[in-house]
Amino acid sequence: MITIYGAYNYPSVFDGLFRDLRPLWALEELGLAYRIHWMDPMKGEHREAANRSVNPFGKIPSMTDDAFKLFESGAIVNYLFEKSGRSPEGADARAIEAQWCFAALNTVEPPLLEIAMWDVFWAGRAGREERRAELVEAARARLAELDGALGDRPYLTGAELSPADILMATSIRFGRHEPGVLAQAPRVKAYVERCEARPAFQRALAAQGKGPGSAAAA
Amino acid sequence: MITIYGAYNYPSVFDGLFRDLRPLWALEELGLAYRIHWMDPMKGEHREAANRSVNPFGKIPSMTDDAFKLFESGAIVNYLFEKSGRSPEGADARAIEAQWCFAALNTVEPPLLEIAMWDVFWAGRAGREERRAELVEAARARLAELDGALGDRPYLTGAELSPADILMATSIRFGRHEPGVLAQAPRVKAYVERCEARPAFQRALAAQGKGPGSAAAA
Repeated sequence: MITIYGAYNYPSVFDGLFRDLRPLWALEELGLAYRIHWMDPMKGEHREAANRSVNPFGKIPSMTDDAFKLFESGAIVNYLFEKSGRSPEGADARAIEAQWCFAALNTVEPPLLEIAMWDVFWAGRAGREERRAELVEAARARLAELDGALGDRPYLTGAELSPADILMATSIRFGRHEPGVLAQAPRVKAYVERCEARPAFQRALAAQGKGPGSAAAA
Repeated sequence: MITIYGAYNYPSVFDGLFRDLRPLWALEELGLAYRIHWMDPMKGEHREAANRSVNPFGKIPSMTDDAFKLFESGAIVNYLFEKSGRSPEGADARAIEAQWCFAALNTVEPPLLEIAMWDVFWAGRAGREERRAELVEAARARLAELDGALGDRPYLTGAELSPADILMATSIRFGRHEPGVLAQAPRVKAYVERCEARPAFQRALAAQGKGPGSAAAA
């Protein structure tokens, strides 16, 4: 049985900021059974022994699959697709899949997440105006570049959704604090909407944060 | 032939901040022949057409292997190891390798890189003292957690160096601006020294930034 270690009971200001949405979305796409081990981040439960025994950094999400333990949302999503026989074949295709996974988490997510951090946690800090403007400009440029790279493909690696899309679409969603970052990226905007319209995404979004007593409680 | 798109001709304040060290180190470990396509980042050459045709984000590094194009240092290093027949066998081992690659780039690198950014680029900005103290504390905690997770293994996944080590050791090196982050991580400190002592790392460090006219010029 697969167990996802996820967050619940947090104020709505945190909505969309927990990355457990990624494995939940992958599980729903793949039709795999799972439970959720709920943790209250406001009580620091993600930093307690149960999660630390899976994830030494005490972050969200982590996963167990019977005795196998795994952390980092990027690794978990790829593991679930491989477990379902949906990994790319051939070294080149695997490298391109990895390229877009790393691009999502290391090139696209950072400026968008930092905008959200300034708005949610650091609104009163000195230097916000200067840094935020810089981040919006960086995010806008990166999403415009992504728009050109995506072209008319429905998903990053072709016609089918892959782990890279789960990581990329959820990364771009951090930018909901500043919709203007998508101004020069109409195809990326349509791409995120295409991802969000998938029934599996909707089921994952409904499951995220539900907490003990919901259907998937571990 | 493999070509790495790397940086040269930059002021010494940028030393250690370009991620082309990662593919160069991997190539030296694997004994693969390569050339370097040098770009002057102070002239914005990484944002010109040659690099953009490989990497739509115009970042450093990118790679071509004959007609195959790839970007993101994490993807390039994994591709090179797979090309050399040095990828893990089995879904669990591949997932653990990926876990440490993502942990390096998404959990360990961010606070260390941001410390370097505040010191190199944002030294005069408002809010530096508060944010820098917070980052040093976060980095110290993460490296202490990594210390526990690493335990007495020589490398992240066991006895042999893997892509995750190339990404992790270079990520930790961003912290050279603030050596105190390793205060509670003696095994991580020894791990980085073990990585840096490898002849392949030393050759990569010597090749990085050398520029046109050096042996590896494309």
